[in-house]
Amino acid sequence: MEKVLRVARLFDLYGDLLTERQQEFIRLYYEEDFSLGEIAAAFNISRQAVYDTLRRGEALLEEWEEKLGLLQRNQCWSRAMNRVLKLLDRLQVRVGGDEESLSLIEEIRGLVNPFQDSWGKGGEQC
Amino acid sequence: MEKVLRVARLFDLYGDLLTERQQEFIRLYYEEDFSLGEIAAAFNISRQAVYDTLRRGEALLEEWEEKLGLLQRNQCWSRAMNRVLKLLDRLQVRVGGDEESLSLIEEIRGLVNPFQDSWGKGGEQC
Repeated sequence: MEKVLRVARLFDLYGDLLTERQQEFIRLYYEEDFSLGEIAAAFNISRQAVYDTLRRGEALLEEWEEKLGLLQRNQCWSRAMNRVLKLLDRLQVRVGGDEESLSLIEEIRGLVNPFQDSWGKGGEQC
Repeated sequence: MEKVLRVARLFDLYGDLLTERQQEFIRLYYEEDFSLGEIAAAFNISRQAVYDTLRRGEALLEEWEEKLGLLQRNQCWSRAMNRVLKLLDRLQVRVGGDEESLSLIEEIRGLVNPFQDSWGKGGEQC
């Protein structure tokens, strides 16, 4: 289960670097829950060929993560931003009813927050 | 000049995915300011071979950026965090001498700040 999640996350980050076929098999196997046999049947190839393609794709994802470390940085960053959100909550309590402070805090929240989801992909709107 | 800067930035982000030789030539040409002829002489190969290796490396860097968009996201994110820092400055003025608020603001600054430099590479300390 942990492996499934890890592959899914790496696939989100680096999937576009894989070949079409590697992408397709990983999607079917990890996201659509197809079995090796089902993929083999659908593509009219051997179970072994499906297995090899999957293993090769996974190895590449891990290799890229080892070299670029996006998943790890993503997690570090996410942790830091969650901490910032908590600190902002505390700050909000401190400033009480001061409207300008509240609106500054709100703007900071907006800048810190949206990136958390969009970081994985398509975070281009800026 | 703009191209030099762009290649240097992409190289920071994706350089580890290039072959050793591509990395070496890009480093010499873009960072150490060697000429094609000087690199050719140093490696005892033709000027054309150096040129081809450089072009191939640059094309790969651009291809990865097109697929993963790290440079663009990096820039978006950097812009957002700079804005957060400015908002924190204004918030600091608002809260006046309230020690607890000041210390919350300081902690937020620390979380938002260090990532700006380390994002490019080696931002693993978390």
